[in-house]
Amino acid sequence: MTVMVTGSAGFVGRAVVDALLRNTDDQILCIDQNDTGQDADPRVAYHCADLGDEDVIAELFSEPCEKIIHLAAVPGGQSEANPKLSQCANLNVPLALMSAAAQQAIGTRFVFASSIAVFGGPLPQTGLDDSVPASPLLVYGMHKAMTEIAVGTNSRRGAIEGVSLRLPAIVARPPGPSGLKSAFLSEIFYALENGEPYVMPVSAQATTWLLSDQQCANVICRASQIDLTDLPPERVVNVPALHVSIEQLVAAIARELGVSTDHVTYQPDVDLEAAFGAYPALSTPLADSLGFTHDTTLQLLVARVFGRNDRAIH
Amino acid sequence: MTVMVTGSAGFVGRAVVDALLRNTDDQILCIDQNDTGQDADPRVAYHCADLGDEDVIAELFSEPCEKIIHLAAVPGGQSEANPKLSQCANLNVPLALMSAAAQQAIGTRFVFASSIAVFGGPLPQTGLDDSVPASPLLVYGMHKAMTEIAVGTNSRRGAIEGVSLRLPAIVARPPGPSGLKSAFLSEIFYALENGEPYVMPVSAQATTWLLSDQQCANVICRASQIDLTDLPPERVVNVPALHVSIEQLVAAIARELGVSTDHVTYQPDVDLEAAFGAYPALSTPLADSLGFTHDTTLQLLVARVFGRNDRAIH
Repeated sequence: MTVMVTGSAGFVGRAVVDALLRNTDDQILCIDQNDTGQDADPRVAYHCADLGDEDVIAELFSEPCEKIIHLAAVPGGQSEANPKLSQCANLNVPLALMSAAAQQAIGTRFVFASSIAVFGGPLPQTGLDDSVPASPLLVYGMHKAMTEIAVGTNSRRGAIEGVSLRLPAIVARPPGPSGLKSAFLSEIFYALENGEPYVMPVSAQATTWLLSDQQCANVICRASQIDLTDLPPERVVNVPALHVSIEQLVAAIARELGVSTDHVTYQPDVDLEAAFGAYPALSTPLADSLGFTHDTTLQLLVARVFGRNDRAIH
Repeated sequence: MTVMVTGSAGFVGRAVVDALLRNTDDQILCIDQNDTGQDADPRVAYHCADLGDEDVIAELFSEPCEKIIHLAAVPGGQSEANPKLSQCANLNVPLALMSAAAQQAIGTRFVFASSIAVFGGPLPQTGLDDSVPASPLLVYGMHKAMTEIAVGTNSRRGAIEGVSLRLPAIVARPPGPSGLKSAFLSEIFYALENGEPYVMPVSAQATTWLLSDQQCANVICRASQIDLTDLPPERVVNVPALHVSIEQLVAAIARELGVSTDHVTYQPDVDLEAAFGAYPALSTPLADSLGFTHDTTLQLLVARVFGRNDRAIH
């Protein structure tokens, strides 16, 4: 079996390749515009390529590829600033990949990294469950929702075996500019680790949904392996995440590191609080039935982020 | 006010231009690949153009255009045979039009001709209402559903004032090859008018949803005029249609023409019966609240098709 991972050099991509190496026997074809492929594992092949080029896609499929994990994307902030770029990367590329996969006529597994950005505006404060329809507000979420339609349709047609995974905020992204307005969710890990003061741009009571990169990779890896025939026709799965307050997150990081939270102050920004600090309870019965899980506890999530989870999972 | 009508030389397009001339004071900018613009009405300007060319779109918007009625499309059969062409015409073109409309920053009205093809597979036999989610099976329906997402998102963002109208089968399309598998719904009108034998490829008991071209144009024209602020955030409207059996349709045509139905025989094709002969009752509360109506009676629909409706409506 060959599994193609697009966006393999990204934050989630690297974790997915690790998870595939750990949990499967698949050959892994890594595709990334920025891939530098240092890994010498004989199961991994690296391909530095621009998926916006149709010839590149044709060449990638010159050998059969049974599974595709499509992570490559232009992030939300950049998509908002350049909708045309988002249309190319976040819509046309997955459509071209699905089209090439369909031509193989082998029921290619297609795991699509969608996003909770498909929900857009104010979330139902009574809680979000699998019945809430997509209603994007951002260009990024719009193109993700449109691609979900294509994943579902192509799967119902039997052209591919697709599934769209709506991913929550994944932590902790590497330090440095990410173009993400929710960067504070990752920055707080490094600020506490480095003993630096941190001004949190949302309130202590703000709530969010979190998943560690490692657990995100486990979910994606599992989605590339399991039987999907019982999925609802939309082929869309809301991925489980821990529902926590910022205060709880800060406390858990400090506890893991054995440091104080004294250097963390709160200066809520109205827009950020509304966009990233008002996540209600999350119920994911479909994902639960497929065996997808979040990090179980906030302490385990934090330990995983710091790579200290060997003691926590066996 | 200028209203742009794309696909203006098509079957529905011609009826829409007529309805706009009758019911509004708008200037009408007709765009069609095949438009030959014979009409000398000073309110109408014709433009023979390929909307797949971005320069063409830029030029069309060199003057402000307050309203767009987007009808141009590649039909279902052709889309199925050439998905790439469908992606260009049925997805990229409306996205480019919306993008150009958004840049005008005048809240351009965008009336998008969507289709009941977004419903795809077996319809709920207990009846279809506004709560049934899109679940396309055809390439055509998939691109219509994806464009609906963009119409909704761009409207929620305030970039346009959009509405997607899901149109049922419109009768009677002009004779000749249409690439439509549902062509029998139109052909029966001409066969009975010309006294020719006709083999109906669905059963007498098959059921369908019908709208006359004239009434379809009235609905579209109305959608370009009315206040849309109370629409649900999806901005999608299931358009009312008459729910009739083929037997009822044949009888009504024969009655209008004063001819017998003896030359009509039935040889149901399993696939056509499933795809076009199993439409359940249709309930359209949202459309009803907006004042959109179907042809009211089958007899009036038939009279309209034959252009004999002057006596029927005043």
